[in-house]
Amino acid sequence: MSLVIPEDDNRLRHVCADCGTVHYQNPKLVIGTIPWWQADQQVLLCKRAIEPRRGYWTLPAGFMENNETTEEAAQRETTEEAGARVELLGLFALLNVPHVHQVHLFYRARLLDLDFAAGTESLECRLFRESEIPWQDLAFPTVSRTLQRFFADLGALTEGQAVPLYTLDIRKRLQV
Amino acid sequence: MSLVIPEDDNRLRHVCADCGTVHYQNPKLVIGTIPWWQADQQVLLCKRAIEPRRGYWTLPAGFMENNETTEEAAQRETTEEAGARVELLGLFALLNVPHVHQVHLFYRARLLDLDFAAGTESLECRLFRESEIPWQDLAFPTVSRTLQRFFADLGALTEGQAVPLYTLDIRKRLQV
Repeated sequence: MSLVIPEDDNRLRHVCADCGTVHYQNPKLVIGTIPWWQADQQVLLCKRAIEPRRGYWTLPAGFMENNETTEEAAQRETTEEAGARVELLGLFALLNVPHVHQVHLFYRARLLDLDFAAGTESLECRLFRESEIPWQDLAFPTVSRTLQRFFADLGALTEGQAVPLYTLDIRKRLQV
Repeated sequence: MSLVIPEDDNRLRHVCADCGTVHYQNPKLVIGTIPWWQADQQVLLCKRAIEPRRGYWTLPAGFMENNETTEEAAQRETTEEAGARVELLGLFALLNVPHVHQVHLFYRARLLDLDFAAGTESLECRLFRESEIPWQDLAFPTVSRTLQRFFADLGALTEGQAVPLYTLDIRKRLQV
């Protein structure tokens, strides 16, 4: 594999020296949910069992796979990481993390029951009220920013008001 | 390169038989704009100079690159394909095309001047009123659906009202 600018292109690409195949590197989508238990005003978080950020808390999320839609990815990750069943309520946040070539999407979600359980990539899953969120022990800036905005918008959301899509660019490592 | 399920995974991945590197294949983001010239109620379209769909009309759009944000990708593609300067006005549409492993995003955009010109990937760029849109000669379903919704929402948008994010899953090849 060598780094060259293919004909009719203007960027360095990884090209196989043997067969000439261009292996494009493009940003990946990381997709998750904000699983909300309305009765007790709680959100479901997962303690990560894997690196990076093992032992820190996150919203259920992961890399979108081929052959699925963004909503299917959100549902799948919520099931895989938290064993939870949710109804999706619309896209809430789009966060760019260009230095790691990622775009994160979070969907609002209604938790359908309390029969959740940690998946293989989680040490533990539990519900948190806003006052209980472990802000200092969240895994990623995209998670903390999304949760901050979610609670800021919660009054409007509870009244059924539409809120604008939350968009943010995170250009370098931030304090969580 | 061989197709195997790596340890701690549950899907077939392309793995290098020599070095063991896993080459993940994930959906790609295609990002573009709806460049709008308010004074004459016109949208800017580009006639494609490249396959697929050479000779058909499209909104300026293309693959998001590493190290950029979704908004930077939208601006870059609009400049590369149409030589146009735009101010972005927010995300308008998110369309899943799972059978080709793509997610398309279109931003509303205010065309800042009329000094546009076809880039190397366009045969021609021109402004169209709604009644002039070449509906039968649009390049992709994502473009025709986005334009249909844009014109349906135009009244509300012109009055400064917020409209919900347009989301659509296109699961197979549709008639444009």
